[in-house]
Amino acid sequence: MALVVQKYGGTSVGTIERIRNVARRVAKTYDDGNDVVVVVSAMSGETNKLVALANEVCEFPSEREYDVMVATGEQVSISLLSMCLQSMGYKAKSYLGFQIPIITDSAYSKARILKIEDKKVREDLKNGSIIIVAGFQGIDKEGNITTLGRGGSDTSAVAMAAALKADVCEIYTDVDGIYTTDPRLVPEASKMEKISYDEMLEMASLGSKVLQIRSVEFAKKYNVVIHVRSSFNDNPGTLVTKEDADMETVLVSGVTYNKDEAKISVFRIPDKPGIASRIFSPLSHANITVDMIIQNVSSDGYTDLTFTVPKTDYKKAIKIVEETAKEVGASGVKGDENIAKVSIVGVGMRSHSGIASKMFQTLSQEGINIQMISTSEIKVSCVIESKYTELAVRVLHEAFDLAKKDVKAE
Amino acid sequence: MALVVQKYGGTSVGTIERIRNVARRVAKTYDDGNDVVVVVSAMSGETNKLVALANEVCEFPSEREYDVMVATGEQVSISLLSMCLQSMGYKAKSYLGFQIPIITDSAYSKARILKIEDKKVREDLKNGSIIIVAGFQGIDKEGNITTLGRGGSDTSAVAMAAALKADVCEIYTDVDGIYTTDPRLVPEASKMEKISYDEMLEMASLGSKVLQIRSVEFAKKYNVVIHVRSSFNDNPGTLVTKEDADMETVLVSGVTYNKDEAKISVFRIPDKPGIASRIFSPLSHANITVDMIIQNVSSDGYTDLTFTVPKTDYKKAIKIVEETAKEVGASGVKGDENIAKVSIVGVGMRSHSGIASKMFQTLSQEGINIQMISTSEIKVSCVIESKYTELAVRVLHEAFDLAKKDVKAE
Repeated sequence: MALVVQKYGGTSVGTIERIRNVARRVAKTYDDGNDVVVVVSAMSGETNKLVALANEVCEFPSEREYDVMVATGEQVSISLLSMCLQSMGYKAKSYLGFQIPIITDSAYSKARILKIEDKKVREDLKNGSIIIVAGFQGIDKEGNITTLGRGGSDTSAVAMAAALKADVCEIYTDVDGIYTTDPRLVPEASKMEKISYDEMLEMASLGSKVLQIRSVEFAKKYNVVIHVRSSFNDNPGTLVTKEDADMETVLVSGVTYNKDEAKISVFRIPDKPGIASRIFSPLSHANITVDMIIQNVSSDGYTDLTFTVPKTDYKKAIKIVEETAKEVGASGVKGDENIAKVSIVGVGMRSHSGIASKMFQTLSQEGINIQMISTSEIKVSCVIESKYTELAVRVLHEAFDLAKKDVKAE
Repeated sequence: MALVVQKYGGTSVGTIERIRNVARRVAKTYDDGNDVVVVVSAMSGETNKLVALANEVCEFPSEREYDVMVATGEQVSISLLSMCLQSMGYKAKSYLGFQIPIITDSAYSKARILKIEDKKVREDLKNGSIIIVAGFQGIDKEGNITTLGRGGSDTSAVAMAAALKADVCEIYTDVDGIYTTDPRLVPEASKMEKISYDEMLEMASLGSKVLQIRSVEFAKKYNVVIHVRSSFNDNPGTLVTKEDADMETVLVSGVTYNKDEAKISVFRIPDKPGIASRIFSPLSHANITVDMIIQNVSSDGYTDLTFTVPKTDYKKAIKIVEETAKEVGASGVKGDENIAKVSIVGVGMRSHSGIASKMFQTLSQEGINIQMISTSEIKVSCVIESKYTELAVRVLHEAFDLAKKDVKAE
């Protein structure tokens, strides 16, 4: 007998019929002799509806009240799922964030979980109840309702699994698992059997939107095994877990891409200490996240600086940078929205050389020019012209033999 | 400077535009120098939508989970109203039942308020905040969410007013106040300036559905002055308050009617001790509320028993009664759904005679047969054939001079 935490996203509970399906799956897990704690999101579309209501009232709603409002979405799902299980003859009990309680800090709409009391839940499990927990929400020390940000239910689930020392945290979603790359671009993409936390972190932040990044950090910290799988079938999915020897034999685990960024270059900046801070402070004050930053070695006392920002912030960013550039005496600013970032990820890189150069070579063979390069221990990213994205992902996927790992083509 | 509790019902907050109106009214009360606590219901239609969802999942949803679900309606309204006030530049803070907390017993979906902590609300008022409280909901001692039953927000408001020792509890609704009778039936019906708690209790339970009965009981117990008024205009409404000398000079304050009941008669029951209990126990076990009961004096060892039940329970009731009648040896059972109850209410009755006979005479002059009569200290009710309801209400309203009290005809 194991303790299983299951998390179902908005699509999985999007209609009454789908809630019934979830109830059947939960019941089966329970009937198999497991203790089951279920974390659910709001029915798909509900959160957007609530946000629209709030925006109808005012442009910038108070974050405290916003959280009070959007937390109702999960409240509806947990009651529906509990009722459904009860009507099937199971003992089920719903828990809101404040009832467990899931204590968070007070950063409304992006709160972080500080502590989970497991006492009440453990008692109810002992009494044979299935526990249904509202994802996405918590309560701060003053008793205010907080929410964890988009995708926060993943973190709720992993945190519950950590607090209860669950055997596994199953994250049900509308995809089968984590793929070596986007199957819409590369039909030969294969589902990974397992992936390390670090790889998953790089994949998630690079654009594979299956798991909220924070949930993976949490899982890594507390060593929670995550099983990402589909709520629409019984196929095994992908395990996100501690790095093991197997994983290192694979050089590259996946290829990801991101088309949501734009590039800004500042030319011939007088190369003096503090110059980077002069450029980036105004952006950070405007809440614009800068991702890749490339600064070349200065030769004649001047340097060029290139970096990427989210496309949604591009116009605001370029205006700010143009002003700063004038102030610091740079010769000019140029922006380009027409870019994409393509990355390869794999823990095997740590112990193998030549991975990056193989990537560059593969791209160049197709005539794809690399505009920026950035690397981490387990990742290499290249910024290229946007129109080559699909081609780049395809050839890299092939070059690193990713399709072969799983014989079953999609 | 006064402390004002205002309650706005579902119609008053039914759309964003209406919520803006409510915010303006709240702001005006605050600008006039008052401390303001606002209790709101769910946006009209929302609760029904939630109930429909629950019923889609199962026919008899668990009461605990049902309360978790329907409590979300008020949670949405309080956040919207708070946001709206904040966007107008006011300090506003929403409170859910568990945050105050409003402690209730554990009778889900019809919980009773046991205790309200006023500490946090008082502090926020002192800091200049307008307090927005979710009506209809509370929390029991174990931390479960409870609701107070339909119309429960009235009780939330009166209870908040009692806990805070507010100067007045204003209940905003879609009518102007309490009328001497239904203005849809009698255009000459006049708005009452004030009415005593006891009269209001009789009016409410007899079919004037302006205030939840329990809220009036609560107001009477804690001596809270209720001001019933419209959220769509600035007219003064009706004060529900302690009885005073003025009130006693009025013989009859209002005429009410109720078409939601049906009549059941059991004939020639052997008149032995315990017979009434034999008849009514099975009904009470089936959760059927019996209203008027008439039993005639027995002459030959047999008696006839007539009573009324809600029309919605009529079929179930008559089946149960037919079985019991056989068991106790009654000669037969007859039912009639085609009835209405017409009542006159007034504290003046206590000290004046002849009121009841004037009622009977008025009805008989119009050829209306009285099938059942029941009286309390401040009320006389007659059951008549349903088709005469409007006529009866009109002639009684005229006979007791109710149109004259207010010169402004509606």
